[in-house]
Amino acid sequence: MIIFCDDGVSALSKYSIGVDFGTESGRAVLVDVATGREVATAVYKYSNGVIDEVLPDGKTKLPPDFALQDPADYLRTFEVTIPAVLKEAGVDPHDVIGVGIDFTSCTMLPTYKDGTPLCFDERFKSNPHAWVKLWKHHAAQPEANKLNAIARERGEGFLARYGGKISSEWFFPKVWQILDEAPEIYQAADRFIEAADWVVWQLTGVETRNSCTAGYKAIWSKREGFPGDDFFKALDPRLEHVVDEKMSRTILPLGTRAGGITPKMAQMTGLIPGTAVAVANVDAHVAVPAATVVEPNKMVMVMGTSICHMVVGEELKIVEGMCGVVEDGILPGFYGYEAGQSAVGDIFAWFIENCVPERYEQEARARGMNIHELFEEKARGLRPGESGVLALDWWNGNRSILVDADLTGLLIGCTLATKPEEIYRALIEATAFGTATIIRAFEEKGLPIKELYACGGLPEKNKLLMHIYADVTGKEIKVSASSQTPALGSAMFGAVAAGKAAGGYDDIVDAARHMAHLKDEVFKPDMANHEVYKKLFAEYRKLHDYFGRGANDVMKVLKAIKTEVRG
Amino acid sequence: MIIFCDDGVSALSKYSIGVDFGTESGRAVLVDVATGREVATAVYKYSNGVIDEVLPDGKTKLPPDFALQDPADYLRTFEVTIPAVLKEAGVDPHDVIGVGIDFTSCTMLPTYKDGTPLCFDERFKSNPHAWVKLWKHHAAQPEANKLNAIARERGEGFLARYGGKISSEWFFPKVWQILDEAPEIYQAADRFIEAADWVVWQLTGVETRNSCTAGYKAIWSKREGFPGDDFFKALDPRLEHVVDEKMSRTILPLGTRAGGITPKMAQMTGLIPGTAVAVANVDAHVAVPAATVVEPNKMVMVMGTSICHMVVGEELKIVEGMCGVVEDGILPGFYGYEAGQSAVGDIFAWFIENCVPERYEQEARARGMNIHELFEEKARGLRPGESGVLALDWWNGNRSILVDADLTGLLIGCTLATKPEEIYRALIEATAFGTATIIRAFEEKGLPIKELYACGGLPEKNKLLMHIYADVTGKEIKVSASSQTPALGSAMFGAVAAGKAAGGYDDIVDAARHMAHLKDEVFKPDMANHEVYKKLFAEYRKLHDYFGRGANDVMKVLKAIKTEVRG
Repeated sequence: MIIFCDDGVSALSKYSIGVDFGTESGRAVLVDVATGREVATAVYKYSNGVIDEVLPDGKTKLPPDFALQDPADYLRTFEVTIPAVLKEAGVDPHDVIGVGIDFTSCTMLPTYKDGTPLCFDERFKSNPHAWVKLWKHHAAQPEANKLNAIARERGEGFLARYGGKISSEWFFPKVWQILDEAPEIYQAADRFIEAADWVVWQLTGVETRNSCTAGYKAIWSKREGFPGDDFFKALDPRLEHVVDEKMSRTILPLGTRAGGITPKMAQMTGLIPGTAVAVANVDAHVAVPAATVVEPNKMVMVMGTSICHMVVGEELKIVEGMCGVVEDGILPGFYGYEAGQSAVGDIFAWFIENCVPERYEQEARARGMNIHELFEEKARGLRPGESGVLALDWWNGNRSILVDADLTGLLIGCTLATKPEEIYRALIEATAFGTATIIRAFEEKGLPIKELYACGGLPEKNKLLMHIYADVTGKEIKVSASSQTPALGSAMFGAVAAGKAAGGYDDIVDAARHMAHLKDEVFKPDMANHEVYKKLFAEYRKLHDYFGRGANDVMKVLKAIKTEVRG
Repeated sequence: MIIFCDDGVSALSKYSIGVDFGTESGRAVLVDVATGREVATAVYKYSNGVIDEVLPDGKTKLPPDFALQDPADYLRTFEVTIPAVLKEAGVDPHDVIGVGIDFTSCTMLPTYKDGTPLCFDERFKSNPHAWVKLWKHHAAQPEANKLNAIARERGEGFLARYGGKISSEWFFPKVWQILDEAPEIYQAADRFIEAADWVVWQLTGVETRNSCTAGYKAIWSKREGFPGDDFFKALDPRLEHVVDEKMSRTILPLGTRAGGITPKMAQMTGLIPGTAVAVANVDAHVAVPAATVVEPNKMVMVMGTSICHMVVGEELKIVEGMCGVVEDGILPGFYGYEAGQSAVGDIFAWFIENCVPERYEQEARARGMNIHELFEEKARGLRPGESGVLALDWWNGNRSILVDADLTGLLIGCTLATKPEEIYRALIEATAFGTATIIRAFEEKGLPIKELYACGGLPEKNKLLMHIYADVTGKEIKVSASSQTPALGSAMFGAVAAGKAAGGYDDIVDAARHMAHLKDEVFKPDMANHEVYKKLFAEYRKLHDYFGRGANDVMKVLKAIKTEVRG
């Protein structure tokens, strides 16, 4: 006898939980494995948040560009959110067959060999380097610069897989900074590990490393492994054996079962001991199958403050300026390509914060709209090309395809009649031209992009932006049905870790077929607008190449003068 | 016996009246000839103002880009302001020895041979072309384009004296537009004349033409006269004899006595019949001696919504992109050079109107400041180069030195941390770089500029701007003591027209020595800032030449797309 509960929870249904660790909070979603229906959600706001001024001891001040976190916040996320979703959904924990997690990355920490973070140790808790270095910790730039210079000098082949440059946000610059600035921490650490892998270790008692973070952030590839010890030795003799001494060479593909929930974690979360846990994943990457994409020629755009562009392909190609290409990095069996724009939503937030005249704020209040909605409405009234204003969307540098953090934003075409909404629209269009530039880079290397898939906050918040992206690229954009796509993707990998025999799936393609869905609304390009945008895009590209490829280094000169003047 | 009145008006003093005809109003200033002291001022706001929508008949609608005026407003200016200053000063009209006037230009009208404007004739009063075409009437652009093309084709030498281009604002494009669109008006007109010369005609009953407007606006030069009849014939056969039929070849140097006040005008104004009246002048040009400048190597900047840059020299040089060079055009005996920036104060007004966040408005209100003052204060707190933001000041095209109305504004160096006051300061700096570019053009042609002299609204309103101009140019800036420099300059020319025997002066140099004064405050360059600005100026020039000299026509392409889209 099948019993259906009032809210559609069937006694025969199986469930999976996805936990998405963001920058400010962690979120658990309990999902019906058969349908992908999101039954319950709970969010935990990290009590120590982003630590960028003073350590939780209240007295240790941090240097500039530090961004740390407290691993206890990750454990509290499990402790608070998993019981909450179980309770809200009213499901029997025996029917929860799997757990998956995704994390910001590269977010990493030093631990002892039992997994205890060094910042939990009284001896080190006032040392900033004992804490988690968050993805946006930018203080390892000197190490990144040296690493890139040495890699270039040695002709290291791996550089090509990362757009020619290893970011200061990534794993080895952060490890090296610890060695440089806190050798006692480097010495005391048995492990350097992604927080993503660390939380899986906490859930299961088993230390694993996943192919996504290893590939995109730690210069690992399935065929070549990590860079050679001689490379690390060239960085610093003390780093020569960092991989063998402090890491692991065993890297597991996504969807692998890392282990089962430990009795201790079962007690903390209410789950059953032994429940399958998938190896860790990264927020943007896990969104790909959750947006239904399990094959080549489709680009997934995770659209928020920035955009991540994800594509899978059957062959290894070197695409200009991509963030990384990693075999098994997104979907097992495929090369996963990641590209990105370093600021998108952030640019519109800057505009709203800095460029909105009072009369617009007054109009928005009078009409009961928020100011973003007002600008969307006003900008929607403009036709492509009508304002004569064009921008380069480099307010936070350019990630893909130029890989240059020192580039800056440009606005051209202003007249005494230029209105704020014309600038606002030009900024949206510029970010769309940025995406179009990335698409072209893929297509030029034999990876045609036929359709676009969107998820993240922007597609829900700004329909005008979606229409502009469709019109600029000339491509249809489908939108993930879930408003919490990464957590759904993690739950999908949890179901794969559980396997078909347990009521889950044997692979992520199968999981996606059942659990991932799209909205009915599709953004179709207006081809008349596309024709105008082709002309504007040609001008954008001319400016892009002129300012971005060295013909005129004015942006760098201005930054250099600024640095000099600020002293 | 010398009687001194309480207010310092001496019974032995002599006075001169300057009348400055602006865009919205006319202003009379009564000045003590011995000292230049401004004793009384009166302003008349034109009752018909700028006519750009419908004629005063209330029913004739105007096409786009028309800007007309009513000559009756000029007569009412005399009628209202001269009696007012006589009364306010309490001087005996017998002690007023001269009158001078200055006008916007090219502001012109068709009249009968007795000086009656065609718009005073019932037959023509509903025809827009019978009215005064104000300087900013831009509807003669097609005629200007044709005129320039034909002049280039014929290799007319005069083009070089006008930066290679005759403006649609000038005399012959306006005359030709009348012929094109209202041949009956062209036919009926006995005269086409600058409003400046027309008001002198009204005061004196004598038709004169002055070397300033003829030279700068009607392609006249002392050595070559007007372009040849064959040139006018090439424009349109009906224009072949326009100079002889509708104008005059007698052009008088500035300071010449045009005639004396007629009995009728004496009755209207309260002046004594026969009082000397100087030939007409132009507002910017008359400001030069009024700012004490009567010799080469000094540049006078008339700073307001735009900037006019005036220099006198002993030889004829072809300076890139100047508006015009005219012998006797500013001071008799010198070549007068005029250059200009088409928008300066207008750009800051645009910024204040379109780019000021509400929190700034709130702060200004809370502190009882106006918003310009608040931005001046915030921008003053920034050091040169500190913001990393740079602009091209082409919000209204570029007059000198590129002579291209289709260029547009550019802002470069924006980041997510860029603040509104940084953009505001970058805009001020850009206009200073624009002036520095003009100075360099003069200096490259052997006309060194040693000192700068400022007058107009901006020097009083924005001290930060003055400091920035001094720092950018590396030159000292002195400021005219008068806040109504053009009217003072007109009064000076009035005193010259009266002559020394009548208590005035025999030449403008002598008048300037006594009547023109500077403020005590001098803006001296901070040479440390100048060093930083030299670096920024080098970047400005690189962008200026790249976008302004054809390497990248993106600004024109964007304008073309805009025009096409707007249909």
